[in-house]
Amino acid sequence: MKSEERKNGENTALWGGRFSQSLDQQVLNYSASLHFDSRLAPQDIRGSKAHAAMLSQVGILSAIELQQINGGFETIEAELAQGTFPFRPELEDIHMNIETRLTELIGDVGKKLHTGRSRNDQVALDLRLFCRDVADGWQLALSRLISAFIERAELTKETLFPASTHLQAAQPISWAHYFLAFAAMFERDLRRLESYKTLHDVSPLGAGALAGTTLPIDPAISAKALGFARPFFNSYDVVGDRDFILELLQIASQIMLHVSRLAEDLVYYSSTLVGLVDLPDKLCTGSSMMPQKKNPDILELARGKTATVLGSAQAMVLLLKGLPSSYNRDLQQDKEHLFPAVDIVSDTLALLPVVISQLQILEARSQELLASGFLMATDLAEALVKRGVPFRRAHEIVGATVGELTRKNRSLISLTVAELQQHYSEADADLLESLKPARVLQERSHSGSTGLKSVADQISELRQALASRSI
Amino acid sequence: MKSEERKNGENTALWGGRFSQSLDQQVLNYSASLHFDSRLAPQDIRGSKAHAAMLSQVGILSAIELQQINGGFETIEAELAQGTFPFRPELEDIHMNIETRLTELIGDVGKKLHTGRSRNDQVALDLRLFCRDVADGWQLALSRLISAFIERAELTKETLFPASTHLQAAQPISWAHYFLAFAAMFERDLRRLESYKTLHDVSPLGAGALAGTTLPIDPAISAKALGFARPFFNSYDVVGDRDFILELLQIASQIMLHVSRLAEDLVYYSSTLVGLVDLPDKLCTGSSMMPQKKNPDILELARGKTATVLGSAQAMVLLLKGLPSSYNRDLQQDKEHLFPAVDIVSDTLALLPVVISQLQILEARSQELLASGFLMATDLAEALVKRGVPFRRAHEIVGATVGELTRKNRSLISLTVAELQQHYSEADADLLESLKPARVLQERSHSGSTGLKSVADQISELRQALASRSI
Amino acid sequence: MKSEERKNGENTALWGGRFSQSLDQQVLNYSASLHFDSRLAPQDIRGSKAHAAMLSQVGILSAIELQQINGGFETIEAELAQGTFPFRPELEDIHMNIETRLTELIGDVGKKLHTGRSRNDQVALDLRLFCRDVADGWQLALSRLISAFIERAELTKETLFPASTHLQAAQPISWAHYFLAFAAMFERDLRRLESYKTLHDVSPLGAGALAGTTLPIDPAISAKALGFARPFFNSYDVVGDRDFILELLQIASQIMLHVSRLAEDLVYYSSTLVGLVDLPDKLCTGSSMMPQKKNPDILELARGKTATVLGSAQAMVLLLKGLPSSYNRDLQQDKEHLFPAVDIVSDTLALLPVVISQLQILEARSQELLASGFLMATDLAEALVKRGVPFRRAHEIVGATVGELTRKNRSLISLTVAELQQHYSEADADLLESLKPARVLQERSHSGSTGLKSVADQISELRQALASRSI
Amino acid sequence: MKSEERKNGENTALWGGRFSQSLDQQVLNYSASLHFDSRLAPQDIRGSKAHAAMLSQVGILSAIELQQINGGFETIEAELAQGTFPFRPELEDIHMNIETRLTELIGDVGKKLHTGRSRNDQVALDLRLFCRDVADGWQLALSRLISAFIERAELTKETLFPASTHLQAAQPISWAHYFLAFAAMFERDLRRLESYKTLHDVSPLGAGALAGTTLPIDPAISAKALGFARPFFNSYDVVGDRDFILELLQIASQIMLHVSRLAEDLVYYSSTLVGLVDLPDKLCTGSSMMPQKKNPDILELARGKTATVLGSAQAMVLLLKGLPSSYNRDLQQDKEHLFPAVDIVSDTLALLPVVISQLQILEARSQELLASGFLMATDLAEALVKRGVPFRRAHEIVGATVGELTRKNRSLISLTVAELQQHYSEADADLLESLKPARVLQERSHSGSTGLKSVADQISELRQALASRSI
Repeated sequence: MKSEERKNGENTALWGGRFSQSLDQQVLNYSASLHFDSRLAPQDIRGSKAHAAMLSQVGILSAIELQQINGGFETIEAELAQGTFPFRPELEDIHMNIETRLTELIGDVGKKLHTGRSRNDQVALDLRLFCRDVADGWQLALSRLISAFIERAELTKETLFPASTHLQAAQPISWAHYFLAFAAMFERDLRRLESYKTLHDVSPLGAGALAGTTLPIDPAISAKALGFARPFFNSYDVVGDRDFILELLQIASQIMLHVSRLAEDLVYYSSTLVGLVDLPDKLCTGSSMMPQKKNPDILELARGKTATVLGSAQAMVLLLKGLPSSYNRDLQQDKEHLFPAVDIVSDTLALLPVVISQLQILEARSQELLASGFLMATDLAEALVKRGVPFRRAHEIVGATVGELTRKNRSLISLTVAELQQHYSEADADLLESLKPARVLQERSHSGSTGLKSVADQISELRQALASRSI
Repeated sequence: MKSEERKNGENTALWGGRFSQSLDQQVLNYSASLHFDSRLAPQDIRGSKAHAAMLSQVGILSAIELQQINGGFETIEAELAQGTFPFRPELEDIHMNIETRLTELIGDVGKKLHTGRSRNDQVALDLRLFCRDVADGWQLALSRLISAFIERAELTKETLFPASTHLQAAQPISWAHYFLAFAAMFERDLRRLESYKTLHDVSPLGAGALAGTTLPIDPAISAKALGFARPFFNSYDVVGDRDFILELLQIASQIMLHVSRLAEDLVYYSSTLVGLVDLPDKLCTGSSMMPQKKNPDILELARGKTATVLGSAQAMVLLLKGLPSSYNRDLQQDKEHLFPAVDIVSDTLALLPVVISQLQILEARSQELLASGFLMATDLAEALVKRGVPFRRAHEIVGATVGELTRKNRSLISLTVAELQQHYSEADADLLESLKPARVLQERSHSGSTGLKSVADQISELRQALASRSI
Repeated sequence: MKSEERKNGENTALWGGRFSQSLDQQVLNYSASLHFDSRLAPQDIRGSKAHAAMLSQVGILSAIELQQINGGFETIEAELAQGTFPFRPELEDIHMNIETRLTELIGDVGKKLHTGRSRNDQVALDLRLFCRDVADGWQLALSRLISAFIERAELTKETLFPASTHLQAAQPISWAHYFLAFAAMFERDLRRLESYKTLHDVSPLGAGALAGTTLPIDPAISAKALGFARPFFNSYDVVGDRDFILELLQIASQIMLHVSRLAEDLVYYSSTLVGLVDLPDKLCTGSSMMPQKKNPDILELARGKTATVLGSAQAMVLLLKGLPSSYNRDLQQDKEHLFPAVDIVSDTLALLPVVISQLQILEARSQELLASGFLMATDLAEALVKRGVPFRRAHEIVGATVGELTRKNRSLISLTVAELQQHYSEADADLLESLKPARVLQERSHSGSTGLKSVADQISELRQALASRSI
Repeated sequence: MKSEERKNGENTALWGGRFSQSLDQQVLNYSASLHFDSRLAPQDIRGSKAHAAMLSQVGILSAIELQQINGGFETIEAELAQGTFPFRPELEDIHMNIETRLTELIGDVGKKLHTGRSRNDQVALDLRLFCRDVADGWQLALSRLISAFIERAELTKETLFPASTHLQAAQPISWAHYFLAFAAMFERDLRRLESYKTLHDVSPLGAGALAGTTLPIDPAISAKALGFARPFFNSYDVVGDRDFILELLQIASQIMLHVSRLAEDLVYYSSTLVGLVDLPDKLCTGSSMMPQKKNPDILELARGKTATVLGSAQAMVLLLKGLPSSYNRDLQQDKEHLFPAVDIVSDTLALLPVVISQLQILEARSQELLASGFLMATDLAEALVKRGVPFRRAHEIVGATVGELTRKNRSLISLTVAELQQHYSEADADLLESLKPARVLQERSHSGSTGLKSVADQISELRQALASRSI
């Protein structure tokens, strides 16, 4: 039924190999994590040094032993930096690789490092250090992205375009107002990261396997040395606690949802048939078949990579649901969900300021749409309200007027006083003034609106918020 | 192929009806939200009153008009309370139902209520008011649950059981330490809710459809009247912002993940073959077939309902990903994800204190396991460390001893000095003291451990944290 | 900090009530399923009748007892039809409600109905009957939708528009080809449903709680009576098997993903700034603030409801992951995920044929875009290939030509022979013929293309596929 | 606030680097896929050869050109096999790497390969070939796993253990019946893969970018050469169709859900406190802190990796929802979701037969539980039914008896005739025979039950099903 080629092809290679592996090798491959957790080497060494220093301070290690251990770690750090560290997959994970290497380098003293510690609190520590670094990095990146929006906003306060709801042209707003909307979203994300760091500012070191230890350790010492606000509250909780990973992935999801909505907008605005913005060539690619194509790949990829981050967050939820409390080996997978999501968010936040600063606004197309469209209908209705017409009645008057013009294939700006009087007998020329798009910059005068003053206030408030943080 | 019965059965009923509906009815059914958003009636009225008061304060409504509107709302509130409010599905949603009723009751003045407002900012407001109430309620419920854990912990500081990692017996801890671990989880959730309320403490009223309004409204006035810390920052952002729903669902997910891990534990601990705890009959049900069964249904349901909440959070993510910015009708579905999740979390948090306070601990079974098991192996190894043996070496000595006993089908507590000397020549009777389970209460002396002092400190710290909040 | 109003407002109502409930009521509310599983009444009765008939056939019930039972069910069916059936929430679920009512009606014989049966196999049966009906219904609805696409395709074989990849105009295709692409997607869904029904065509009746029964039942008899292809293979498997729900939700996800892509397209094509299609007013709604708006709500809702269905499928996955085998009470939640998803898919499939048949194609706008655009660039490159130019070289020639014209703000159709000769010296007038959009209808001549012959073949093949099924 | 170490530590390294990258490099890194799609090299070459052969057959390539191209591919295949193929990340993906290399090797003829093809149909083809191979491989692996279950079942037909519902001991079943339940689940998965392969047995080659081509290609020729049942139906559909990836991930989800339930069971059954089974040492690992631990890591990892696969399936859904039809660059991410999920399923299916065949059943523990437990209560009730007691009444009689014994801390097996007569006056010694666990092997006599005959039939039916497939 299938071609001969397939029977003898990949299939054999894919499956034959697997079944001829020795069991030990299969089990090792299935359970090893070194290929991804080697990334935690810096955190693991940082944590081990703090642990050793604490052991020395409480008298479990002598000063000389501590010196030997620190010396060993210096060698290991150098090996890692130079790429000469002898990674051994058969040692399964980064923790055993580093401890084993330490003992090779400094002898039996290395066997004392793991005193009063379990891999359970050790891996929890490494991950917390990693996540804290990531949160710091994202805050920096978000503040750069917000700055990019502010800079574009400064220059586009009076550049109107037809903003939509339901993807149907609704009202004119300035590009500045649009950019500041996204600045506001990412600023919320930045503030979530602040709360996040405070909530999880906890060192797990000393929790042991789940119950602590009978040795005279002091978790507060290592917590302080590692820059944590406090040691763990409860050893049983902290060895199985991955809330700090889940919440970071939830924040990552929120960030990427904002990114995906921005990407969706810009793919739409830059589409051939819409044409409100243009992207620089270097952010686009062509087609292998169609010579004329210029595709907004960076934005599509940002939207697509959003799915990957959201999927990772969901995988983390799937991992934790119904898991017995304390440590279970299932948790090893947390890193496989965390790392790719972290990289995507970091890479995306680093690229977006370029997109925002280099985006070209095609004003002519907007002008054309503002002139022909019906975007000032609300302003006309509100002008009627100012003359005492109840809003629902004003809405009806303008609705009827718009309907009539549409059927005649006419624009709203072409409306005459006489025509308006058909629907509202007291109409006069002043009323038609409200149909000029540029007026929204003055007429929308309250806080948070697209009006000039509001936009200036938004910029100044955001600048202050960023400055006060001095990330 | 299929039986005659089916052809003429439900199938016809299910499908025939659908296709014979008039199109208008189908479209209405598809788009209507009244069947679920009627729940927002209190929030909608609260928001409308604040809006009207603001309109009056800035001179858009007269004092008499405001009075009429407030009078109308009083009637409506009474009708809602008495169940006589005339809900009309053909008006689609709760907002139009209430506004229409208002105009029926007070005439043309009702048509002025929607001045300077759009359904976009109106629905955003209702939802924010709702979510704020929910967050308040969950904080209260969480503090009650934490109190239930503290109360059980007070009485079980010396009641040991064999705690597990990987579901394999690991070390003895007190039930108090176990209960406090969950108290710690739910206390984190409580603190997340605090940050949540601060971050989203924003009134959207005045944002209009997306750009604000030309009328002289003041968003700060209605924000203050509704108890919000500030009005919206950017109108375009706020009409499409559902971050406050997503984050509440993310927190709900976190809470329910904690619940699901607790439920998994207790289903396991109460299973026939484990028997460490027993649940009161009223929290269990029987079997329709097997007369002897007593099933821990409440816990299984809590675990199962966790899936529903996590699914709702995921549906919210699916809703928002790649959605164009500002308002799109897709957002109507947010309520269908929010409401059921809110109810499950609220119901579960209300029931759990009962479970915790009524859970019966079966001490005899624990004693049996503690006596026969190998749970004190770590303590023995640490006793060796105290005598200067490097930890990795001590781990080997005890590992070899345990292996030997296991092969002989012996318990660790039966170990003799002579036997231990085979592996560690300097062994003496004092070392074997470390094998007595009750010693963990004294020997585990550092903060966060299962030791008596640590547990007392945890209880006192938690009590203070709850008291300082006085929710 | 918060206004007085809130402290005494909803909050109290929401929470006070909950805590003052009696425990029994709380537990009942938490565990009851009657409010949603009452929907399964027809399936439950159908299953019970088949069960009773089997019991009678194997001699466990007498002919008279069977008659009494059937008589009782007739009464119950009448009560359900007339809305007089006495639903009692305290009986928890629909199964106990019906059985209890039966015993009320016919006395002690009713107590024999549950012989050799458990709620575990009973509920599994009801759900399988329900899902089978749903699959039948969806197949019918899909075939109607496919027919709607075919009908539009018949009339639009020569109506070209600029199709996109990456939302950038790519090549002209006919609307017929576009409609048939979606017909193809939904036809795949239809075929998936066929496989689905075959795979799960199994009766669980007789599996009991998990191990079958010692009574002389015959599962094959009831399976046949209910129209199933076979009885269960393994009792332990079938009581905990919810694969048939998961797979139905996976198919629902696939269907709704197709819907969501169609909706996304049509929202885009009907957006003010694109304007390729228009939707009839009755499928749109207006704005409460902006008098000119006409929003494609039905499509946005279809896209939004997709999120709900996908979330339900995910909730089902979350429910099942890591669940102990056989029956666990968690499974009660399966219905809360299944029913809303089923309704959304059914409602959406019923509405879509209306959207497709009433969609108005705005040809003038397409003509304008086809004339000015660069959509024929590939055809020009292929014309060069026909003259022996390697494709990659032809792609370069046309790419350079397009670039030049773009910089001069010229359309491709305005290209002259002389200009083309700059890049390809052997160019002549014949080559420029390939730039006429209408030629794609003849020139694309292979199967599956947008060419006239291919489109006619597609229509005919689809018609045959539908006819051969005669759903 | 934070330690000095952090300010100058990883953070700088993590972030400084990113921002000092040149933009081009950043964009390239963000959009490149070579690091993962290089895995598709075999499929890409297979597809290109079939494409070239078709081009030659329809006269677009000469016989000599085809020979040159095939020669070039031979060299490339050799380079790939030997690891000397010059991968160039700056060429972005595997397709451009291979085509570029081909042209380097054979000159301008290489530029003709892409004639009548787009990357859109090319990548769709590679992925379809890959997925088809994967489905074949999984079918083979599933049949091996099912065989492992059958082999264990053969030897455990009479080995009873207390099976549970709700994790509460319910009724005795044989291990054979338990193993066959999982064999049945995986056999369903196997059959789903069959339907899957049939549904998506389609070649996309010839669809071009979205509309086909004007060149005289014949999609049927390449489809046949590649072993597909048919060429694509509609070019516009097929370039954006990723249903075959989604459905494969849905099946992967189903398979892993079965795995996760098995893993949950076995983690439970092998836990210290339950002790029904034991796992061989080589499938377990120890603890770094606790010398006595033996953890069922392979099973926990299988359960944990299930989360990863389910997360990937969800990421795919997130990717597709609301995506415009035809090709969008977002789709590049499909591979990042597909590949890891494929590897996990393949690795897990390869390991599980080892787990099943090496699992040690601890019979003594089961015997103890069967003797003391109440698992025969249903059988006693059914014995009453056989004497004419209505089932609900029999259930009450036995329920009351069980309750009495429980309160007296007695086992059911110790029940005397006199005691039973208290509840059922006609009781005699024969009735008590039904309380012997071993009787279930004979007494459960209907198909699908745990009875000996049924289990033998199940084994024989499964063997036939596997044989008839001869995978």
